[in-house]
Amino acid sequence: MLNVTTIAGVRSRRRELWQRAQTVALVPTMGALHDGHLRLVDRAGELADEVWVSIFVNPTQFGPGEDFERYPRDLERDRELLATRGVALLFNPSTKEMYPRPGVTTVDLPELAGGMCGAFRPGHFQGVALVVTKLLAIAQPEVAVFGAKDWQQSAIIRRLVEDLNLPVRVEVVPTVREADGLAMSSRNAYLTSQERQAATVLQRALHAGEEAIRGGLIDGRAVERRIAATVAEEPLARLQYAAAVDPDTLQPLGTVTRRALLAVAVHVGATRLIDNLLLEVS
Amino acid sequence: MLNVTTIAGVRSRRRELWQRAQTVALVPTMGALHDGHLRLVDRAGELADEVWVSIFVNPTQFGPGEDFERYPRDLERDRELLATRGVALLFNPSTKEMYPRPGVTTVDLPELAGGMCGAFRPGHFQGVALVVTKLLAIAQPEVAVFGAKDWQQSAIIRRLVEDLNLPVRVEVVPTVREADGLAMSSRNAYLTSQERQAATVLQRALHAGEEAIRGGLIDGRAVERRIAATVAEEPLARLQYAAAVDPDTLQPLGTVTRRALLAVAVHVGATRLIDNLLLEVS
Repeated sequence: MLNVTTIAGVRSRRRELWQRAQTVALVPTMGALHDGHLRLVDRAGELADEVWVSIFVNPTQFGPGEDFERYPRDLERDRELLATRGVALLFNPSTKEMYPRPGVTTVDLPELAGGMCGAFRPGHFQGVALVVTKLLAIAQPEVAVFGAKDWQQSAIIRRLVEDLNLPVRVEVVPTVREADGLAMSSRNAYLTSQERQAATVLQRALHAGEEAIRGGLIDGRAVERRIAATVAEEPLARLQYAAAVDPDTLQPLGTVTRRALLAVAVHVGATRLIDNLLLEVS
Repeated sequence: MLNVTTIAGVRSRRRELWQRAQTVALVPTMGALHDGHLRLVDRAGELADEVWVSIFVNPTQFGPGEDFERYPRDLERDRELLATRGVALLFNPSTKEMYPRPGVTTVDLPELAGGMCGAFRPGHFQGVALVVTKLLAIAQPEVAVFGAKDWQQSAIIRRLVEDLNLPVRVEVVPTVREADGLAMSSRNAYLTSQERQAATVLQRALHAGEEAIRGGLIDGRAVERRIAATVAEEPLARLQYAAAVDPDTLQPLGTVTRRALLAVAVHVGATRLIDNLLLEVS
């Protein structure tokens, strides 16, 4: 596995591969890798000749008071995991390499970034859109692979790529879960053992919403209330939002017909967790 | 010369060139080509194996009431000019090809786009930033060539490329002028013969500003007033703005030291013309 820390190093390798007509699948991550990330890596391996992974804890997507400083970092372990998984190149740039001076360019998708997590993390998706645009321009992969757990992020990136004609295919991989259904997340490491048990409430709440819909509830607001009510049953959990939205536009569904995305954000103790469920309603 | 109207067609040709390790210089234009454009084409030819030109009158950079509908279009003549100039590929997409549905992604550089022309053409540079990002993502050229006449545009594109790490070198080519100093522009075709004579006032006004600085005037606002006073002497001309700014940040210069960009926008009759002068002050 090539360990690359400079943009020039990535570009040089990319040129070599073009000349050999070989393709690249990029998996952008913030490190602290878990099985969810490794599933993305495996899927990437099916889609291109080489799998590249970036590890960059992007400061521009963290707000003041968020967990940028204490976000888990374990580069040595990450590197070992990736090397054994057949990854060809690890791009691990410094903040200085990615942001040599403060940028003045903004990339935004207000219609998709304003609701859900965006309503509670102002600037977050602008930071994500910026860094993903940069990473795609640096690595120029044929495919970029993201996890469905961050559904809003993946919807934003899919639309960004479409609107800007970025020469990349976006692949979204289903969420990987623990045995009890908790979605894998680097932030699960923040949970105490009691909180870890309580965290299963996200999955339970989404299933309560699904069951309500399967039982004939079609009013979007009522579905959200059903999800919220389930979260409220868990004393260690505090709901941030429950949403029933169109999976592509992320606009709230007045009436749940055909496709729906159910999503929640919940504080369990001091840790903010998110999860979602894609529904095809017949 | 290849005539290509689809994004897929451009990408296919680009892949061929990569496999042969050949480079591309792109000249993005709105057509109605004049000698200024052809100078860009010639410069492009010095910088890459193939010169590609795009002709696309981009609706998103025109405001309501601007000249999108009547902007000069003469594709047959443009095509002949480019073919004789050794251009390898002409990309002439439809609006539908570039914008199959209304986009939701915005690309903006508020600090550079807010002043000068941006103050009088709200949304213009957002449209420019968007379409240039798209064209660069479609053609993936090693070099992109722009004219210095649209200085604010070129400064915005240089910074956009830097901030987003777009894999392209931006080349800015000095303005080409008529014998009497008028900067070449597709919009000069709008001028009556009387207005055409009056239009030389832009160049005279910029030179008046330069002479004032060479004579020791260092107050930026006073330089702007000197430029404005020269424009005021021409009855057919009406000043929109006169600016003395930093050539990179486009911020107004309180004191003119070292590098300065003098810029004007003037209505001559109903036609809006712009020009500028880059000064190295010793």
